[in-house]
Formats: sequence, C-alpha cells, structure tokens
Amino acid sequence: MKGETIETFLEKLRPVIDKKIEEWIPRKYDDRSMKFTLGEPRYENSVNSATKSISEPFWDFFDRGGKKWRPAFMILVAEALGKKRNDVLDFVIIPEVIHNGTLVVDDIEDGSDMRRGKPTLHKIFGMDIAINAGSSMYFLPLIVLIKNKEIPAEKLKKLYDVVVQEMINVSFGQALDILWHKGDDPDEINEEKYLQMCAYKTGALARMAAKIGAIIAGASEKDVEKIAEFAECIGVAFQIQDDILNIAAGKKWGKEFGEDIKEGKRTLLVIHTLQNADEREKKRLVEILNMHTGETKLLQEAIDIIKKYDSLEYAKNYARRLVEDSWRNVDKILPDTEAKKKLRMFANFAVEREF
Amino acid sequence: MKGETIETFLEKLRPVIDKKIEEWIPRKYDDRSMKFTLGEPRYENSVNSATKSISEPFWDFFDRGGKKWRPAFMILVAEALGKKRNDVLDFVIIPEVIHNGTLVVDDIEDGSDMRRGKPTLHKIFGMDIAINAGSSMYFLPLIVLIKNKEIPAEKLKKLYDVVVQEMINVSFGQALDILWHKGDDPDEINEEKYLQMCAYKTGALARMAAKIGAIIAGASEKDVEKIAEFAECIGVAFQIQDDILNIAAGKKWGKEFGEDIKEGKRTLLVIHTLQNADEREKKRLVEILNMHTGETKLLQEAIDIIKKYDSLEYAKNYARRLVEDSWRNVDKILPDTEAKKKLRMFANFAVEREF
Repeated sequence: MKGETIETFLEKLRPVIDKKIEEWIPRKYDDRSMKFTLGEPRYENSVNSATKSISEPFWDFFDRGGKKWRPAFMILVAEALGKKRNDVLDFVIIPEVIHNGTLVVDDIEDGSDMRRGKPTLHKIFGMDIAINAGSSMYFLPLIVLIKNKEIPAEKLKKLYDVVVQEMINVSFGQALDILWHKGDDPDEINEEKYLQMCAYKTGALARMAAKIGAIIAGASEKDVEKIAEFAECIGVAFQIQDDILNIAAGKKWGKEFGEDIKEGKRTLLVIHTLQNADEREKKRLVEILNMHTGETKLLQEAIDIIKKYDSLEYAKNYARRLVEDSWRNVDKILPDTEAKKKLRMFANFAVEREF
Repeated sequence: MKGETIETFLEKLRPVIDKKIEEWIPRKYDDRSMKFTLGEPRYENSVNSATKSISEPFWDFFDRGGKKWRPAFMILVAEALGKKRNDVLDFVIIPEVIHNGTLVVDDIEDGSDMRRGKPTLHKIFGMDIAINAGSSMYFLPLIVLIKNKEIPAEKLKKLYDVVVQEMINVSFGQALDILWHKGDDPDEINEEKYLQMCAYKTGALARMAAKIGAIIAGASEKDVEKIAEFAECIGVAFQIQDDILNIAAGKKWGKEFGEDIKEGKRTLLVIHTLQNADEREKKRLVEILNMHTGETKLLQEAIDIIKKYDSLEYAKNYARRLVEDSWRNVDKILPDTEAKKKLRMFANFAVEREF
C-alpha cells in the first residue's frame, strides 16, 4: 500500500465496491431478493419484469465503470478516524449509486447521446424506463440503512439526515445549473454564486460520502463538519478541473472537446473572462455561448478569448488554494496514518488529474 | 363534523394542508429560507434563481389542487389512535409532496400534455427543470424529519425507514407499469401480478401516509402493519376505480376518455377480459391495445369487448371486497371515534366515487 498512487488505489478498490453493490442490488431479481428488497408481497411479485425494468438498466450503466472516488473517500475518512474498511463497506454504495442515478437523469435533462463510451441509458431503454431507473437509484442504496442492525438508531437517524440534506442540496445545485446554462438568468451569476452552485451540485455528494464515513467512525460534530468541508472543496475542485479539461484537455480526456461552451455553461473560466475582458470580447463570448453551437471554429474563438485573459491559470490556482485551505483544518484533527496520507493525495488528484 | 361526507371533510382540510406546505416550501426563496433549507452557504446563495427553478414549478403544480386524500388519511389514523391533528400536521406534507413529485415525473414518462386542467409541468418549464423539480419533491418534504426536535431519534429513524421503503416500492411499481403498458412483457401479467404492481405503485404512498400517522401515534408494530394494509388496499381500490372510471365515467371525471386503452394499459378490466373472452375477441383487444390509438371507434370497440365480459362489475366487486376484508382487521383495533367513522367512509369513497 506504501507509495501507491491514488489511481492505483482506486483501481484496486473498484472490484470490491462493485461486489458490494451487487450484494444489495442483484443483476437478476428472484423471489428471495424481491422479498428482501420490497417486503412480503400481498399478491405476487414479477421477478422477470423487475429484472428487465430495474436491474438491467441499472447494471447496463454500472458496468461502464467510473472513477468511484466517493466510496474511496468514505473508506479513507473512516480509516483515518480509526475504523476498519469493513465497518463502512456497506455504506459506500449510498453515494456511489446515488451519483450514478444523477448521471442517468442528467443525461436525460441535457439530451446527451453518449456516456462512458456507450449510448446514454434513455437511448437504450427509452426515456420512461431511464428516468425511473435513475430516480430509483436515489432510494435503492438506502436499503443498507433500513437493514442495518448494528449501528444504534440515533446514529442511523443522523445518517438519514445527512443523505436527505445533501440530496436536497444536489437538487438545488442541479436546478441552478440547468437554469443558468439555458441562459435564463444570466445577470444572477457571479463567481461566489457559481462556486455555491458547484458546492451544491458536485460538493454535496462528496460531503455525503465524507460525513457518512466520519459519523460511523464516531467523530465529533465539529470534526464531521471540518471533514465535510474538505470533501465539499474536493468536489468543487473536481468540478473546476473538469471545466478546465473541457477546454484544455490532453488525450486522456474522454469527453467531447468544448462541450461546456456548446451547452452555454457559465463556468468559473467564463465568469472570470467576463469580468476581465474588454466590452467587445465580452459581448462576443456571450454571443457564442448563447448560440449553443458545435462548430469548431466558433468554439475555438470562445476558447481563445478565455485563454487570453489567463482564465485557465486563474481557475487552476483557485482550485489549488481551495483544497489547500480546507486541508489545513483536517490536517490538525487526524493522526498520522496511511489513510491520512491518501486523503492528502486525493486533494492533489482532484486538481492535477489529466482525465 | 358529525354527518359530514368525506368530500366535505377533504374540502375543509385542503387549505390547512396548503398552508402547511407553504410553511416548509416557500413560494419565494430568500436568504433566510435558503439557509434554513440548505444549511449555511460557503459562498453565496442565488435566491432569485432558486425561486425560478424550484419554487415556481413547485407552486405552479401545487396550486392546481388535487384531492389530497393521503394527508387526510394520515390525520384520521393519528386521531383514531388518540393523537391530535397538530401532532402529525407537519408530516402530512411528506406523502402529499412526494405524490405530486411522482405525478410531475409520470407526465414526462408518459409524454402527457395536460394535468389538472393545465399543460403538464415539462410543457411549461422544459423537461430539464421539470424532471429536477419532480425529483426534488421526493426529498424536500423530508426536511420535516431533519428539523424535528420533539420526536425521539429512534422513532424518527423508523419514519425514515418507512419513507425509504415505500419509495423503493413506488419505483418498482412504476417500473412494472411502464414495462407492461409498453407491451414489453405481456406474458408476465396476470391478476395477482397486476394487483401487486398497483400495491407498489399506488398502495405504497397510502401505506406511507398511514404508517407515519400510526407510528407517531405510538401504535404497536402489529397494529401499524394492519393499518398499513388497509391503506394499501384503499390505494389499490382507488386505482381499480380509476381504471373503471377511465372507461365508464360520467361528467364529473376530469381525465380523457379511454386514455388507458390508448396507452395500452393492462388494467384489471383488461386482464379479466383476456381471461374470459373467446380467442377472436381476445386477439382483437390485444391488437387495439398495442396500436396506442386515440381513434374513438377503436377505443369504443375495445370497451365493448371489455363490457361484454362483465369486467366492470368484476373489478368493482373486487375493489369492494378488498377494502371490506382489510377493514375488518382495522375495525378490531380502533376504539369507536369520529375519526374511525371517517376512515370507514374513506373505504367507501375509494370505491364508490364518480370523479
């Protein structure tokens, strides 16, 4: 484990997480697993139809992979606070499954065609099945809270509070993101408001993962909050780095070049440019964003304006500062362990990754 | 209150419920209500954008009305078990807001144009805002559980368990309903499986309402389950009566005539007909269902086949027996009160209503 990079760490963890998800959400429903998931039926369950409409879309999406950094983060938080990996392993499915649910639904909301190298779920199963499968992922993993018999009720109640609060925040973050990239409320946005939207949209699930780990490990309310803030900042930094890669990515980057410009997103890069550009270039950038165009020449023109005002460096430095500042609070409360070292590496990973 | 009909009772309750919802989910967000709902922001909240993307779609939908029978049911259960209305009033928003969220999402899944006399939410706000508003309604009302300081943690944990379990069941019910009316798995369906789908899709939210009322009132686990079963049966009976009215409605019925046939739904009426009709008529009925046609002549032909085999009477009697049977268990455990009388009337209302 010594000297391991975050990438290797994540890679080794992935099959463990996949196995755990499969324990709770089967690839094929049968009478036993349906009864376990839904309770005693009054009439008769339809195991084949449940497999077709719930398991199949679910596993079609999950088998595509993903970084799975939220489960890893939860495990590291718990380990850094003195718990064993097995003490939190059931709970890692909560932020991971919910995260995937939000991706399924995001793809429908954005009208996206591809996700992780395959057609989006609604392209394969139809919009109706896909919306329902996506939102079922918000609740299905919470079955680990219902079924848990080891953790005291008071602590389980706290875990529920965390999940619900962060889900509310995710829905607000998503609402603002949609509204803004439709260009419906352009005067609303400034740097502080954009970062708050990211904190809700991307930070909230990271907070959820960190808080679950910390609460199960028995951290004080104050320490839980410090760790949650660090996680939120990692989430926001991830988002900022995503914004940067979207414009300046190397070969490893899997998404479409300039997609954010096409979607008209007011990212930190755009906001910084609009604050600093001269009137003519400012007007032109807004014009291109509102076109929702995929034309390379226009995308490149927008990107050139953004680069001219050093917005990439600005955003990168902002993200670096963000994780450094929030790490300081966490650094003080955690004893020196291998898990702590990895959490520290996580902060770098969020900002420095090239994919 | 004596001699009051269920209709009058519901009518008087509606403004009380609306006011309660407005207390928790404001028509306009401001700094105070956003902080209350989302926690302390790290950066800066966008109150206007939150109002535009969350409150406005929410209230556009809520102001359209609806029977609001689930909150009424929760109140009656609590009262019948010796609690005051005020002891559960915060919690009635849970099943009611969630129910409305499922309608918003159902309309998108079904591609419906109208709901409660107005264009569906996605027709007004766009699919992206509408999907997000709909799913935010699954979590927003649970804030009453986070904020509650009076009920012990153990009981609140039980309430969370109930909400999550029933939401899982709703998502399975919806999944089966979608799959089946697409005609994707026609051989799967029989009467017992159809009723189980209804128990999940329509019964689960009724169960949720009843269980919350009964748990807060301190009923034993056994009694909670009996009341939940009664509620589930009322939900299923409501669905059966909906199916009947869809084909045989008088003037009071607000929905489109024969819509279920158009959507290809395998309702109890259809299943009973397919079990009893001769080969030729059976084949013809399936043919029309699979056409997804709105042509009056064809709809009428399907309805004539359904009526010929007494399927309306069969379904009506089935629904009546269902609520009668489940009432007997509840009858035994509740003392004679005005609330109990109303619960009894509810059972009739579900089956005998004409709208």
